[in-house]
Amino acid sequence: MKDFFKLKTISEVLARLGRFAALEPESVPLSQAHGRILAEDLVAAEDLPQFHRTVVDGFAVQAQDTFGASPGTPALLQVVGEIGMGEAAAQPLRLGETVRIATGGMLPPGADAVVMIEYTQELDSHSLEVFRTVAPLENVLQQGEDVRAGVPLFPAGVRLRPQDIGLLAALGVTQLKVYRRPRVAIISTGDEIVPFESPLRPGQMRDSNAYALAAQVESAGGEPCRRGIVPDQLNAWQEQLAAALPESDLILLSGGSSVGTRDWSIAAIQSFPESQILVHGVAVSPGKPTILAVIGNKPLLGLPGHPASAMIIMEVIGRPLLARLGGLKSVEASWGQTITARLSRNLASSLGREDFVRVRLRSAADLPWADPILGKSGLISTLVKADGWVQIPLHTEGLEKGEIVEVHLFRP
Amino acid sequence: MKDFFKLKTISEVLARLGRFAALEPESVPLSQAHGRILAEDLVAAEDLPQFHRTVVDGFAVQAQDTFGASPGTPALLQVVGEIGMGEAAAQPLRLGETVRIATGGMLPPGADAVVMIEYTQELDSHSLEVFRTVAPLENVLQQGEDVRAGVPLFPAGVRLRPQDIGLLAALGVTQLKVYRRPRVAIISTGDEIVPFESPLRPGQMRDSNAYALAAQVESAGGEPCRRGIVPDQLNAWQEQLAAALPESDLILLSGGSSVGTRDWSIAAIQSFPESQILVHGVAVSPGKPTILAVIGNKPLLGLPGHPASAMIIMEVIGRPLLARLGGLKSVEASWGQTITARLSRNLASSLGREDFVRVRLRSAADLPWADPILGKSGLISTLVKADGWVQIPLHTEGLEKGEIVEVHLFRP
Repeated sequence: MKDFFKLKTISEVLARLGRFAALEPESVPLSQAHGRILAEDLVAAEDLPQFHRTVVDGFAVQAQDTFGASPGTPALLQVVGEIGMGEAAAQPLRLGETVRIATGGMLPPGADAVVMIEYTQELDSHSLEVFRTVAPLENVLQQGEDVRAGVPLFPAGVRLRPQDIGLLAALGVTQLKVYRRPRVAIISTGDEIVPFESPLRPGQMRDSNAYALAAQVESAGGEPCRRGIVPDQLNAWQEQLAAALPESDLILLSGGSSVGTRDWSIAAIQSFPESQILVHGVAVSPGKPTILAVIGNKPLLGLPGHPASAMIIMEVIGRPLLARLGGLKSVEASWGQTITARLSRNLASSLGREDFVRVRLRSAADLPWADPILGKSGLISTLVKADGWVQIPLHTEGLEKGEIVEVHLFRP
Repeated sequence: MKDFFKLKTISEVLARLGRFAALEPESVPLSQAHGRILAEDLVAAEDLPQFHRTVVDGFAVQAQDTFGASPGTPALLQVVGEIGMGEAAAQPLRLGETVRIATGGMLPPGADAVVMIEYTQELDSHSLEVFRTVAPLENVLQQGEDVRAGVPLFPAGVRLRPQDIGLLAALGVTQLKVYRRPRVAIISTGDEIVPFESPLRPGQMRDSNAYALAAQVESAGGEPCRRGIVPDQLNAWQEQLAAALPESDLILLSGGSSVGTRDWSIAAIQSFPESQILVHGVAVSPGKPTILAVIGNKPLLGLPGHPASAMIIMEVIGRPLLARLGGLKSVEASWGQTITARLSRNLASSLGREDFVRVRLRSAADLPWADPILGKSGLISTLVKADGWVQIPLHTEGLEKGEIVEVHLFRP
């Protein structure tokens, strides 16, 4: 057991996540692909647009017919028809001719520019005066200008945003491969923990971590399943793990990783034949008693029972782990957005330990201030008051007031 | 009609959103409240925790019994029992006594501190040596230290994050009031637009905006309903609006707001008895031909047909409008996070027009660079390449290379 207690650094823990592969891809219709992680490299199968389109209401012309045109010396063109919306021109446009066209309409062959209606005057139904020179391709969206057939669109491993969905719709991609969402079992432990709907007796606490963790799993793109509270008995642990494993891609143990006397989680994990404890103890505050294990090929993350510890470890290790399973390319992407801020007070830390300090952002003239929210790791309210977290690196004794820090934002 | 065409500024448009009220609240169980917008002010009904708890494994003591204790001069205490997890102590702790206690356990009456097990040695089952002084309340989470009964928790109008859900679970809040999610009808128009699954004939375009807008609605917490493509005929418009209104809280018209000849949207809106055009035309690029209207008490947003224009207007006006309906307190919150960056090139604009420029972020030593992604508003790819948008204010002629800008990030 002893070497389990050699504390690992966060980067050592993250390196161990590499053994877990992305879940299998599934095919979804485009209408369900928003927010999902792409599981194939997509290449444009066609040009967008597939024809020269006008971006204004006006008249399609051969640009050379307008060269030198001005309000004083208008060009005179013969109106030979009108392009209906969604229709192709019946015949090519010749020199001296023009056709009426509305925004989004397809230019006829031969036309290479469009004069806005504001710069024209119709003398009669066949004659048009043009008061302005247009250059070739002026007011025209060229075939392939948005996307050219054959160009790479998105690599596998990116999360699809609304505009990405729009582009794929424009290219007629009706169905695509995305990674399956990880199903995450959340198992709570502790004889003092009761279901949160129950009345409390003295000494009891409600199972709040399971709810916070479930929301974090949702926020990271997973599907949480709260599996209730396991009594502090080895056989209860073994039964619950055996039941959860076939239905889950990741198991979260809440409160099952302290060195307390009633800690059965290590024994329960090791009672499974193909199990391995990868990490037991992380050089981090809060969150030191974290466990990372594998049973068969399924990862298990044992989170500390203190609410702030559990949620911080879920952000710092749980999100990257869900990202691995979910197929997201980068750990940075799983951590989400950072804001550059200025620390508003000194923060002490210990050499050889990484600290994750909750901070609130406060606007200032240039960079916002990051106000540390200090408090015991048993407090939930420190997280509620905070906008994000700041990492104090392993080999420093702290950060000084005024230092520039990157704040990792908590997400809804 | 004429005064409709007096262009409004973005802030004038946003001011007009004040007439739309939040939708009615609905009661949801806590397990469904994550990401929802709170519709009531929540106050703590009880203390959290409800009793003094230990945050370490060890022995509960009266702190004064340990004063002066050290490895050379240990304090000797009588072990009178053990506190079971989730149980209240049977009897108060007297001077000279101690009880064994595990992390999360309830201190017995009379105890005011906990000695960590590492600083003790049991001589026999009744005698304990303590090698360290503990101060009163050391290693103790006090009753009410996390939250005190009666304190405000969250005001109505905030979006509930995972840690907020955790706090509410800890306090036993099983059911709460949130605002109903806005149901958003998305109606596409244009005789050149075809369903995105259809094969394209020359001159036709796929209905990509409906898909991008639906994803934006989801991202803003609404429930999108794509209602297909309406032909450019007044009665078709009227029928579709009449069908959509009773089933929707907001109607988005995609492509129905140009001044083109086949624009029936204004006429269709005005054919409803209790309708009013609030805005027709916004002093903005892209997105000038935007319409804001009300039919009965339902808002209608007419978006330009160009993909970049439609998506930018949905970000800049649509999100705040959904925020109003959804009960979110601030427009800033609806726009989401900003990143401070440095503009990498000059950007021209016109006085009296706000520009929303798509930018890509590129890391640099201090502030990231914001690289403008220029291109016609008919291009979707400019949005796909961008990480967010920068606003060029109304009364400037542009921004200069090196200027500090706030980048509003596009969200997944």
